[in-house]
Amino acid sequence: MLKSVTVDGRSPEDSRRASLGALLRRVHLAGAVSRARLAESMGLNRSTIMAMTAELAAAGLVREDLPELTGRAGRPSLLVRPASDRAYVLAFDIAVDRLVAARVALGGAVLERREAPRTRAGADLDTVVRVLAEFGRQLHRGASPGSVCVGVGASYCGMIRPGDGMVRFGPDMGWVDQAFGAELGRRLDLDLPVLVGNEAHLGALAEHQRGAGVGVRNLVYLHGDVGVGGGIIVGGELLGGDGGYGSEVGHMLVNPYDGRPCGCGSRGCLEAEVGERALLDAAGRPADRFGREAVREVVDAADRGEAAAREALRIIGDWLGIGVANVINLFNPGMVIFGGMLREVYLGSATQVRERIAANVLPVSRERAHLRISALGDDSTLVGAAELGFSRLFTDPLGTPVGSR
Amino acid sequence: MLKSVTVDGRSPEDSRRASLGALLRRVHLAGAVSRARLAESMGLNRSTIMAMTAELAAAGLVREDLPELTGRAGRPSLLVRPASDRAYVLAFDIAVDRLVAARVALGGAVLERREAPRTRAGADLDTVVRVLAEFGRQLHRGASPGSVCVGVGASYCGMIRPGDGMVRFGPDMGWVDQAFGAELGRRLDLDLPVLVGNEAHLGALAEHQRGAGVGVRNLVYLHGDVGVGGGIIVGGELLGGDGGYGSEVGHMLVNPYDGRPCGCGSRGCLEAEVGERALLDAAGRPADRFGREAVREVVDAADRGEAAAREALRIIGDWLGIGVANVINLFNPGMVIFGGMLREVYLGSATQVRERIAANVLPVSRERAHLRISALGDDSTLVGAAELGFSRLFTDPLGTPVGSR
Repeated sequence: MLKSVTVDGRSPEDSRRASLGALLRRVHLAGAVSRARLAESMGLNRSTIMAMTAELAAAGLVREDLPELTGRAGRPSLLVRPASDRAYVLAFDIAVDRLVAARVALGGAVLERREAPRTRAGADLDTVVRVLAEFGRQLHRGASPGSVCVGVGASYCGMIRPGDGMVRFGPDMGWVDQAFGAELGRRLDLDLPVLVGNEAHLGALAEHQRGAGVGVRNLVYLHGDVGVGGGIIVGGELLGGDGGYGSEVGHMLVNPYDGRPCGCGSRGCLEAEVGERALLDAAGRPADRFGREAVREVVDAADRGEAAAREALRIIGDWLGIGVANVINLFNPGMVIFGGMLREVYLGSATQVRERIAANVLPVSRERAHLRISALGDDSTLVGAAELGFSRLFTDPLGTPVGSR
Repeated sequence: MLKSVTVDGRSPEDSRRASLGALLRRVHLAGAVSRARLAESMGLNRSTIMAMTAELAAAGLVREDLPELTGRAGRPSLLVRPASDRAYVLAFDIAVDRLVAARVALGGAVLERREAPRTRAGADLDTVVRVLAEFGRQLHRGASPGSVCVGVGASYCGMIRPGDGMVRFGPDMGWVDQAFGAELGRRLDLDLPVLVGNEAHLGALAEHQRGAGVGVRNLVYLHGDVGVGGGIIVGGELLGGDGGYGSEVGHMLVNPYDGRPCGCGSRGCLEAEVGERALLDAAGRPADRFGREAVREVVDAADRGEAAAREALRIIGDWLGIGVANVINLFNPGMVIFGGMLREVYLGSATQVRERIAANVLPVSRERAHLRISALGDDSTLVGAAELGFSRLFTDPLGTPVGSR
């Protein structure tokens, strides 16, 4: 009797669903992977893998074919690929300065995208949702007839309540308690929930799954938009905390004396000291200049030797270094990844960041932490939104009727 | 075939061992728990629980008996209790100012203890290990004839390499790369490894398992000794990070301008601003006063209205509040627990700490975090060391020959 016991008390049916989902997710992330490799990485025998891939193939979610000849002896292990023409998600990215939507195939390829700049004037829920829903409909119509939309994910530049996609606090767009996920779902009318996540959380997951942090179990992702967001992976899982609002690196108080005012109402937060406005002000840029291009211009000017731009990056880099040193001491991560606007800022101030790490991080933690820029570039948050959209499929791969169309 | 698959690919034998260990651990933590309750909390049926408790009872690790009559109808569910007279661990606590050793029974009762003040002069590895090993031998000899030592755990005030108990960095005792765990194991000569953990990590685990934080999935434990350590529980697990050196709240840089020098070589770390010496200096106490009693005296003096002591607690409380606000923003915890010397400091400066939280924590995270003092008092680290010592037994309950004596 004891032999059928599992520690967590799951039923065999739950267990089987979870195994199929885990296998499909591996195929989705790997692109093409041999049965032998799947067996090894999942700790299952080949015949079990074969039975599982057969079920997923019957459901229209994977295909199996022979690998190209390698010249090695022995029977080659079949390659399993995601059926990227059968299942897709809609992914949305609501950043401070732009709205992006994309149709993303199982396997992760971005099939088609729409993008619009978001002027700060048009930040109300109704306008944003109207634009996104129209993009969504266009993308949905453009899908090939045999394919099925299996989920919708969205990245938002603010604090999101898990479960229902409520924006609890989005200071950059002036949103408090706006039912964004529910409203977008209603307008899209696809009979699918819209799963919403914080942009830095999703950027972290994307870099962990498909970017600079693949295989790194503990990493800190810092995302620069107008402010600074954080997504922290602890033991392979996103740190959400009790309410899902954890990883808020941007509101770490770093300057307790004469800190700049922050969008949260406080002063001296990391994002107030290293955010877009702090950099542009320090470089003496006028108040009507803002956005990613304005930040890039300062970093370029510093490269060309402009004194004001260099000094601005020196100051901002020192504050950024304090924030990075603190998270390394707290999380002992294998990697810190700079994403969004912070890619440029970090590249322009790496010396200051490294000096702070040398001065303030305990040696035992310093020896592990690699510093990297986002490998997915401006798309890290969009990719994260797509992965969130796929998450339902991996929970119950056979519960989504892909094969029926 | 699919029905026997587990997601993680464990063998039925591994799974069974893990289940038995999980059950024994629940009994150990609960003290006495009905079979019905075990079945419910583990998600297993009663007959499975019965078979498992029978195995553990045969191995001499638990006992089953009828509960006292409750007057309710129906057959009462048997109570399962840890066999506290059969298995024990030796637990050691190496704090800056004292050495403690205890024999702790399965079930968690402290059966016998030894304690010595540790003068700062006698901090070398050899002296410390000699004192502890002598305590250990006395405690071992005092054990009843039918009982077996199943593990050894130690709490140390510094950074510990997981696996071998090497002290990588123990600034308060001037230790760098000292093979403490191996050396204590050699001297004890019990044919058992000495498992060593950082004091704040173990304090956090102890409060999570037996103290103020039972049932709280995300908590931050701050431990004041001479410095400030942190132990952070994320999703029910201790945050160790890549190398096991995570949770180092004490070396978060909070004062970047005129920070006090810190034992780590930097300045302005949280522990430099709120540690024992910062408080005593701020209160104008002479340099030859130190230790827990000196800290308590300042807090008592403030309670009596002494101006210097009150001002000292106001200043230290503000820095402590900054550190607490930052960890709440980062971890969105359900609870922050103040342990060690920080119990007194927090009780004397709760107003300042709460003011900082109100000013610097995002409202969505503020609404969750409860502030508490350690429920285990000065013993949180010792209890954590005992739990560490028991961890081997819970990994493989039948692999330890308790029943053979």
